[in-house]
Amino acid sequence: MRLRLLLTGNELMAGDIIDSNSAMIAATIVPLGWQIEQKVTVGDQLTLLCEQIDSLCESADVLLINGGLGPTVDDLTAQALAQVTGVDICEHPQALQHLQHWCKRLGFSLSAANRKQAMLPRHCDIIDNTRGSAVGIRLVHKGCMVLATPGVPSELKYMLDDCIIPLLQSQFESDKIRIHRLGSFGLGESSIQQRITEQLPDWPADIDLGFRASMPVLEVKLSASNAISDDTLNYWHQRVAALLEDHLLGDIPISLPESLIQALRQNGKTLCTAESCTGGLIASQITSVAGASDVFPGGVVSYSNTLKQQLLGVSASSLELHGAVSQEVVLEMARGALAKTGADTVLAVTGIAGPTGGTNEKPVGTVWISWGDTQQLQSMQFTLAFERHNFQMWAAAIAMDLLRRQLLKLSPIASLAQRFKA
Amino acid sequence: MRLRLLLTGNELMAGDIIDSNSAMIAATIVPLGWQIEQKVTVGDQLTLLCEQIDSLCESADVLLINGGLGPTVDDLTAQALAQVTGVDICEHPQALQHLQHWCKRLGFSLSAANRKQAMLPRHCDIIDNTRGSAVGIRLVHKGCMVLATPGVPSELKYMLDDCIIPLLQSQFESDKIRIHRLGSFGLGESSIQQRITEQLPDWPADIDLGFRASMPVLEVKLSASNAISDDTLNYWHQRVAALLEDHLLGDIPISLPESLIQALRQNGKTLCTAESCTGGLIASQITSVAGASDVFPGGVVSYSNTLKQQLLGVSASSLELHGAVSQEVVLEMARGALAKTGADTVLAVTGIAGPTGGTNEKPVGTVWISWGDTQQLQSMQFTLAFERHNFQMWAAAIAMDLLRRQLLKLSPIASLAQRFKA
Repeated sequence: MRLRLLLTGNELMAGDIIDSNSAMIAATIVPLGWQIEQKVTVGDQLTLLCEQIDSLCESADVLLINGGLGPTVDDLTAQALAQVTGVDICEHPQALQHLQHWCKRLGFSLSAANRKQAMLPRHCDIIDNTRGSAVGIRLVHKGCMVLATPGVPSELKYMLDDCIIPLLQSQFESDKIRIHRLGSFGLGESSIQQRITEQLPDWPADIDLGFRASMPVLEVKLSASNAISDDTLNYWHQRVAALLEDHLLGDIPISLPESLIQALRQNGKTLCTAESCTGGLIASQITSVAGASDVFPGGVVSYSNTLKQQLLGVSASSLELHGAVSQEVVLEMARGALAKTGADTVLAVTGIAGPTGGTNEKPVGTVWISWGDTQQLQSMQFTLAFERHNFQMWAAAIAMDLLRRQLLKLSPIASLAQRFKA
Repeated sequence: MRLRLLLTGNELMAGDIIDSNSAMIAATIVPLGWQIEQKVTVGDQLTLLCEQIDSLCESADVLLINGGLGPTVDDLTAQALAQVTGVDICEHPQALQHLQHWCKRLGFSLSAANRKQAMLPRHCDIIDNTRGSAVGIRLVHKGCMVLATPGVPSELKYMLDDCIIPLLQSQFESDKIRIHRLGSFGLGESSIQQRITEQLPDWPADIDLGFRASMPVLEVKLSASNAISDDTLNYWHQRVAALLEDHLLGDIPISLPESLIQALRQNGKTLCTAESCTGGLIASQITSVAGASDVFPGGVVSYSNTLKQQLLGVSASSLELHGAVSQEVVLEMARGALAKTGADTVLAVTGIAGPTGGTNEKPVGTVWISWGDTQQLQSMQFTLAFERHNFQMWAAAIAMDLLRRQLLKLSPIASLAQRFKA
C-alpha cells in the first residue's frame, strides 16, 4: 500500500504549534507493516490544498488528510475535496444528524458555525467521530482512497483506531511489525547505545533498534518484522532489559509514578509527600495514575516557611540556622509528613527552582530530597542547573526513583542522578 | 520570496520523534514577513529525496532542507544534492578544516565516519556551524537557492540566526509582521468565531485572524503586515479584547495560573489549596510560575478521607452523611485550609476522576469546587465527563477561573464552565 499524508493548518506553517498528529498517525500505522511515503504540510489556502490533494493522489493508494474540518472560515478541507473531485458542497444528512446528536448530548443549541461542519462534498461517505463535532470524510480521487480526519488529537486517535485502521486492514495486506518498548530512567541515549554496541555485538540486523526520549523516561524500542520469531524477539528483549539493569522501569506504557506505585503495592506500603520547590508536582503525577488512592493518602505543599512549620512541624530554629533548603529541614519535613499523615513512606523535597532566590552558597538548582520510612529515612543533595520547568521535572523524577530503588532493594541511585549529586 | 521546506529522516516518518525543527524554523522566519509555502517530509531514501528536491526547487526562491547531514550511512542530503545538480561528491577543503578544528577542540581524533561529513557536492558553498560537526550546504538549483541544515536543534537554531537569516535579508525584501496574541478561557473556538462574524462584520482583510488551542487556554492571534498601521492593529486588538469580555486572560504568553496570580497580587491576597481529585495539580500549576511564592504559601493534597479529617479538619459525620464528594465536604475542606494555612483565599476541589469510583447518584466526572475567602466562600457542582487526565485539567482550570472572576469582580462564571454545571 502506498500511503501519503497531507496536513493542513496555518498554525502548522507559522510555527505556532508543533505537529504531534503526524507522529501519532505514524506510530499507529507503521506497526501494522505499512510505511508513510511522504508527508506534506500546507497552510489554509484553498488553491494550495487543491493542488496538493490532486498531486498526492497521483499513484498513491491512500491519502490521509489531517486538519481543516473545524467550524471556522479557515477550515477548507471539505471545500478543497469538493473542488478537486468536481462536485459541489451540500449538507450531508448523516453529518447533520451527528451534529444534532452531539449538540443535544452537550446541551448546546446547534449554531450556524457548527452547522457548517455538515457541509461536505456531494456523495462522499462520512467517518464516524464519537469524540467531537467534526465527522471525517471518505471519497475516491484518481483511484486513491482519500480519508480526511479532524485535527483534534483525541478525535483523530479514536477515528484511527476504531474506523480507519479496520478499513485499511480490510482493503490492504498488512504485515504486523512487532514492537517491544522498554521504559528506563537514569541512563542517557548514548550510554545505552554504547552498552548495546559493547555488550551485544551480535545484534541481529532484522530487529530495528530505536530510542525515544519522553522526558524523564527514555524508551528503547525493538521492531521486528515477520522474519523474526517471537522467541528470538523475546530473547533480545531480555538481553536489552538485562543491560539496562535497575534503570529499567518496565514495558511501555510505564511512567515513573506508575513504577513507584507498583513498587509501593508490592511492598504493601503507602506514601505521603511534603513538597516545597516541586509545589505539588509529585502528588499531581502520582494522582494522575488511576487507582493511586490505594497507596497515596495525600500530602502537603509547604511552599512558604510558615507552612513548613504550621503543616509539617518544621522547627523555627532549623529554618533560621540552616535555611529552608537544607538537610535538617528536608528531614524535618519528611518526619512531619509521616507523623501528620500516618503513611508508611515519604518523599520530601526542598530547593531553589529559580530564576531568582539563589545565593553563592546555595545557587539556583540546589535541592535536598529525603525519602524512605521512619526506619530508614535517607536524604541527599543535588544540583539541577536547569530552567525552572526542567528543574521541577527532574527533582520530582529523581525523588520518585530514589524511593522506588529503596523499596525494590536496588542499587541506591540511577547513573544519571549520580552525576547531579552535589 | 517563495520559501519551501524539506525535512528528511526515517525517525520523522516512523513517529519515533515529533518534528519540532520545522516549528522553530517557522517561528524564526514568519515574524520577518516571509511565509513558508509548503513543507514536505520524507524518509532517508535517495530517490525520494532527489525527486522532492527537484520538484520543490521548481518556481521557488529558496528551499531550506533540514536533516541528513550526519556521519551515518542514512544521511543522504549531500549525495542527493550532488545527484540532482549533476555534479560529483568530493572532499570540501573548508569542510574538512572545520571537522579537523572541531575534533581537536573536543579532543577526538577525526574518524572515517566523521570525515564523510566533508564529502559535499563539488563547487557548493558551506554554511558555518560553530555548534557541531556538520557544516551546512548552499548551492543553486533551477534558480532556487538551496540551503541544507543539520537536524540537531541547537545547531540549526544557531545557523538560522547567525547565517541564514542575514543571508536571506541581504537578498530578499522582508516585511516585519506584527503579531498580537490574546489568551482566553471559557469560550470555544466556534463561539469566538461567531462573535467576530456577528459583532465585527467589517473585519479588515489585511489582518489575519487565527486560533490556537493550548488547552485549557484558547489563543486568538492577529497578524498584520506593514500595510496596517500600529493604531489600526491596536484598534482591532481592542475590539477582539472587548468581544472576549471577561473570558480574556490577557496578552500571550499568559496561562490561567498566571492570570490568577496577577489577580491575587492586584488584590494583595494570598491563596491556599485543598485538593482531593485534582491531587496537587492546582498547586503544581501555580508553582510552575516563577515568583508564585508572593501569593501562594501552599496547600494540602487530601486524597484520602482520613487526610481530609487529619489535615483539614473535615468532620467524620459530613463524610459519612454526605460522602467525600459533596457540598458539605468541599466547604469544610475550604474552611479547614483557610484556618490551617492562614491564607486569604482558597480553592478546594473534591470529585470522582474515574475511571472507577462512580455511582448512579454520583457518576464519574462529578466534582464540587469551593472558592473564595472567609467572607464570601462559594461552592458549585460540575459534571466533567472526560477521561481522567482531562477531568483533572478542566477541574483545575475551572476552579482557578472561578476565583479569578471573584477577585476581579467579573461575571461569576465562564460561558463554557456554565455548560458543565450540574
